[in-house]
Amino acid sequence: LKTYLDCLPCILNQTLRAVRQTTANEDIQREVLNAVAAAIPLMHVDLRPPEIACEGYRLIRDITGDDDPYRKIKTAANKKALKLYPEIKNLVNQSECPLLTACKLAIAGNSIDHGPSLAAEVETVFESAVKTELAANDFIEFEDNIKNASLILYIGDNCGEIVFDRVLLEEIEKSTKAEIIFAVRGRPVINDVTESDAVETGVDKICKIISNGTDIPGTILKKCSPEFKQYYESADVVISKGQGNYESLEGEKGNIFFLLKAKCDLAARLLGVKVGDAVMKHQNLMG
Amino acid sequence: LKTYLDCLPCILNQTLRAVRQTTANEDIQREVLNAVAAAIPLMHVDLRPPEIACEGYRLIRDITGDDDPYRKIKTAANKKALKLYPEIKNLVNQSECPLLTACKLAIAGNSIDHGPSLAAEVETVFESAVKTELAANDFIEFEDNIKNASLILYIGDNCGEIVFDRVLLEEIEKSTKAEIIFAVRGRPVINDVTESDAVETGVDKICKIISNGTDIPGTILKKCSPEFKQYYESADVVISKGQGNYESLEGEKGNIFFLLKAKCDLAARLLGVKVGDAVMKHQNLMG
Repeated sequence: LKTYLDCLPCILNQTLRAVRQTTANEDIQREVLNAVAAAIPLMHVDLRPPEIACEGYRLIRDITGDDDPYRKIKTAANKKALKLYPEIKNLVNQSECPLLTACKLAIAGNSIDHGPSLAAEVETVFESAVKTELAANDFIEFEDNIKNASLILYIGDNCGEIVFDRVLLEEIEKSTKAEIIFAVRGRPVINDVTESDAVETGVDKICKIISNGTDIPGTILKKCSPEFKQYYESADVVISKGQGNYESLEGEKGNIFFLLKAKCDLAARLLGVKVGDAVMKHQNLMG
Repeated sequence: LKTYLDCLPCILNQTLRAVRQTTANEDIQREVLNAVAAAIPLMHVDLRPPEIACEGYRLIRDITGDDDPYRKIKTAANKKALKLYPEIKNLVNQSECPLLTACKLAIAGNSIDHGPSLAAEVETVFESAVKTELAANDFIEFEDNIKNASLILYIGDNCGEIVFDRVLLEEIEKSTKAEIIFAVRGRPVINDVTESDAVETGVDKICKIISNGTDIPGTILKKCSPEFKQYYESADVVISKGQGNYESLEGEKGNIFFLLKAKCDLAARLLGVKVGDAVMKHQNLMG
């Protein structure tokens, strides 16, 4: 997904939201806003949105000196979702097709985005999610691909959401003999998962955790670590969670299933869905 | 209403939308976006939002050389609304309280904002508007103030909407012996009304038209022409249409009725309503 002009004001907005999590000092908030605004003329639209957004988050770190402003929010989201874990498992186990239900819930978990609206979302979205049909639905291919895979790379997205990912990972385990790898970001950025979140939520007990080696809120292959790239290239199925990973991997080589909530007009239009829709989309490009 | 940090990304977004009306050339669009982004660090939050937004629209004019990019859209909106004039009059005449119905319709007309969503809006919003209750409702005071006024200053907002204003002006005329003045912007800015729109829609047949003397999409008193200020100070009732005028006149001296649709979180919060709500709010400050 290329960067559209619309992405630039949106990135300014996202950065403002993020710096407010770091400090209540309006002078510092303004300083960050000014720095990101001043950087906009230098942002190349041939980069993908997460690469550009990343520059804003770096400016926040530089100006505030806080390397992980969302730490408390991330841990709270993990804890809250872990409390719901038995309920989520229950929904999956009692459903007609546990793998599909786990997919739907993992996609619903992608609603858990940074910010104060978190609390309500974790508790309320997931029950209705089971009943809602996916707007783009490549589940039959997903089920078949999972079953026959030998290496599955699952790329995580947000904290809290990772508990829903764990439930899906557990269902995938039952459906395949493949080795499963779970990928996290290399450094804290917004509320994205890093290695400590995989440990906090027990995902490290189910599968191997690797880092993408970057501080980008997405998966920009050419910037990822050699280890990550090796797994990416060896995986016969990639599961990509969330819009940041979609924006990064759309159009890239590989056998990818995108599981996400469409969060802006541009992504929704490209996916052929509406904002807020739950999406499971298959993209298999030989490159 | 002071400028919040949230207003700055929003202004960047508004400017992008506006330059897209002027030209399809993405290089020019980017040039405008860059110029506005670069100007953000210089924007003072002690100015009100319309004053700041105005700087963005000036940059569009400077860079594109187009003084009135919304001219076609404005004329189309006026024509479309004029076609509906008989229907609007009918709704008013058949209602139990024509003045209240005309107010509700004039507020519904405030939904007619610039952009491609216009066509649908003019035709669809107004019928349901009559049935919807106002979220903030100072109509009893409005009716009483209108009746006893001797000079009413009605400050217009958007094209298309002005036809709904005309219907309200006609109802006000029946309810008062006051002289009525209709104020427009001094120069084209977005789809705001200027003198030619008052002529196109026949508002000049009902009352005297004055200009605020500026290119600001609002009413920043200290920047308005001496003529405008004189009328403003002499008026015993001011009717202020739309959010730009509200952002300008909130907290200012005068006996003002704000008629608007709340269009962003900040204004809605300040008004104690939700985004999209129809508002008629009285503010009477002695200064």
